[in-house]
Amino acid sequence: MLQQLFTPSVQHTLDLIGIFVFAISGALLAVRKNFDIFGIAVLAEVTALGGGLIRDLIIGAVPPAAFTDLGYFVTPLFAAVLVFFLHPQVQRIQTGVNVFDAAGLGLFCVAGTTKAYEYGLGLTASATLGLATAVGGGVLRDIIANEVPSLVRWDRDLYAVPAIVGSAIVVLCIRFQALNPGTSAVAAIVAFAVRLLALKYHWRAPRAWNRRSSAVEVEEG
Amino acid sequence: MLQQLFTPSVQHTLDLIGIFVFAISGALLAVRKNFDIFGIAVLAEVTALGGGLIRDLIIGAVPPAAFTDLGYFVTPLFAAVLVFFLHPQVQRIQTGVNVFDAAGLGLFCVAGTTKAYEYGLGLTASATLGLATAVGGGVLRDIIANEVPSLVRWDRDLYAVPAIVGSAIVVLCIRFQALNPGTSAVAAIVAFAVRLLALKYHWRAPRAWNRRSSAVEVEEG
Amino acid sequence: MLQQLFTPSVQHTLDLIGIFVFAISGALLAVRKNFDIFGIAVLAEVTALGGGLIRDLIIGAVPPAAFTDLGYFVTPLFAAVLVFFLHPQVQRIQTGVNVFDAAGLGLFCVAGTTKAYEYGLGLTASATLGLATAVGGGVLRDIIANEVPSLVRWDRDLYAVPAIVGSAIVVLCIRFQALNPGTSAVAAIVAFAVRLLALKYHWRAPRAWNRRSSAVEVEEG
Repeated sequence: MLQQLFTPSVQHTLDLIGIFVFAISGALLAVRKNFDIFGIAVLAEVTALGGGLIRDLIIGAVPPAAFTDLGYFVTPLFAAVLVFFLHPQVQRIQTGVNVFDAAGLGLFCVAGTTKAYEYGLGLTASATLGLATAVGGGVLRDIIANEVPSLVRWDRDLYAVPAIVGSAIVVLCIRFQALNPGTSAVAAIVAFAVRLLALKYHWRAPRAWNRRSSAVEVEEG
Repeated sequence: MLQQLFTPSVQHTLDLIGIFVFAISGALLAVRKNFDIFGIAVLAEVTALGGGLIRDLIIGAVPPAAFTDLGYFVTPLFAAVLVFFLHPQVQRIQTGVNVFDAAGLGLFCVAGTTKAYEYGLGLTASATLGLATAVGGGVLRDIIANEVPSLVRWDRDLYAVPAIVGSAIVVLCIRFQALNPGTSAVAAIVAFAVRLLALKYHWRAPRAWNRRSSAVEVEEG
Repeated sequence: MLQQLFTPSVQHTLDLIGIFVFAISGALLAVRKNFDIFGIAVLAEVTALGGGLIRDLIIGAVPPAAFTDLGYFVTPLFAAVLVFFLHPQVQRIQTGVNVFDAAGLGLFCVAGTTKAYEYGLGLTASATLGLATAVGGGVLRDIIANEVPSLVRWDRDLYAVPAIVGSAIVVLCIRFQALNPGTSAVAAIVAFAVRLLALKYHWRAPRAWNRRSSAVEVEEG
């Protein structure tokens, strides 16, 4: 067992902030897809809690935290109600939402990696589950909304990379016995910053190589 | 552990009825989507057993009931064969199918809530899993059929609300130590009745608020 | 516990081959869908490991093999990089890919059925999980790519049937205490051969019956 990263109440507050901002992104997509109030609530819950749920099922932490902590369950409902009534205002501050979502990404990849390691997984598997915690909810959100997950779309700014960077910093710290509240915070902040830079400069990942390099291929893009 | 709600054979028969009617709805969608016989069987199984499977994975009841009770597995296959040969006749009695599906909704939300509570979850989490048991199979059905889940579509009659009502009655009964076969039956029947009323009067849930109320928004509907 | 089917290193090599060829099929679909390099890696991982992951969650084998064996995790990444750089060449040998995919299908249905039985499931449930192991990754692949799973499409050559045949042979061998490396190999080879024949002769499963037989129905096909 690792030492507690933060005091329990600080960790819990950070978790709730991450859950809230992810729930906002789910609720906004639901409004865009013309879902009713229950659809908004479902998508808020799934986006906010789906990544952690997948992680907990895989590491055998049942029942998952999403079902044992009432605050985890109620927070997305609050976000859903907020978006239900105020969605134009929320959309108008889309930049703000993106910043908070980036913060959620940083917090979740660190928390997910740490929890997976505490349950006995190896370093690579822990980092993978940190990534899954951070991006899993968004993938489930897009599947339910019947869209290609924005995680895998080439025309979206980098989302996986910041989470991979954050998770990698955490496992490197574990490897060199340097994980503590300070280095955890650094990992989360670096992931957060990389995501903000990706948004600002529209960093994108390459598509398959020979779309550009192969002379025998016609440009398909 | 709660007392057994019904005699085991009565409970088992009710479960199989719920499984059968949900399987019919999955098989009919598969026919509509032009799937082959295996696609019909897959969609029947997933619709009938998916909600309970999600619940069992979350509460840690592995292997899930769907894989330990042969009757649970064979019943959807029977429904798939029936629809394969007789789908015009089954569709012609769509009203009948809807009534049975409403019965399945009532039975599953009560059984799901009760089982989750027996596995030690709190009241809110138990009610949520009751809802997930009742609607989860239909969501998986629609995802595999590559459609927006009818659960979240605004243009479908209320489906989540009846299950929420049924689950809520069960947890209230648990809270006040009044859960017994009689009150469980009442919860299932109320959920069933609310769903039938929603079908009859086309009750729908509202979409995001300011589609109607905000003066600065153009009507998008 | 069954006797070890093959020596551990042989079994592990067969697993990695199956994982690799499934990963290739996922990566190729990702290229076709215009995903970026991360999308290619995600789809390779999900296709290769998704079926085994579903099986392991259902039988309670957590953390799943996909997260405890580094080779299982790295192999799909290698396939993703290969397809990223060489996808026209890989697509040009589509027939070869199909042959390997058929081999993966045969290996996975046998390995999945055997593992499920070792974890105490009944014969029917074990065969079902063998089928799920073999086809689950492909279904998740298609769901993430936002396509109707090719498993359930009528216009695709038989895919479920070969896996069902292989799984059925395994459970028959278990039933008559004849499961050993030889009979396991026979089961995998029969599944492999049936899939190759289905590809060669375009065997397809029928769609709902009365599309053809009912005089009162207009041909919809």
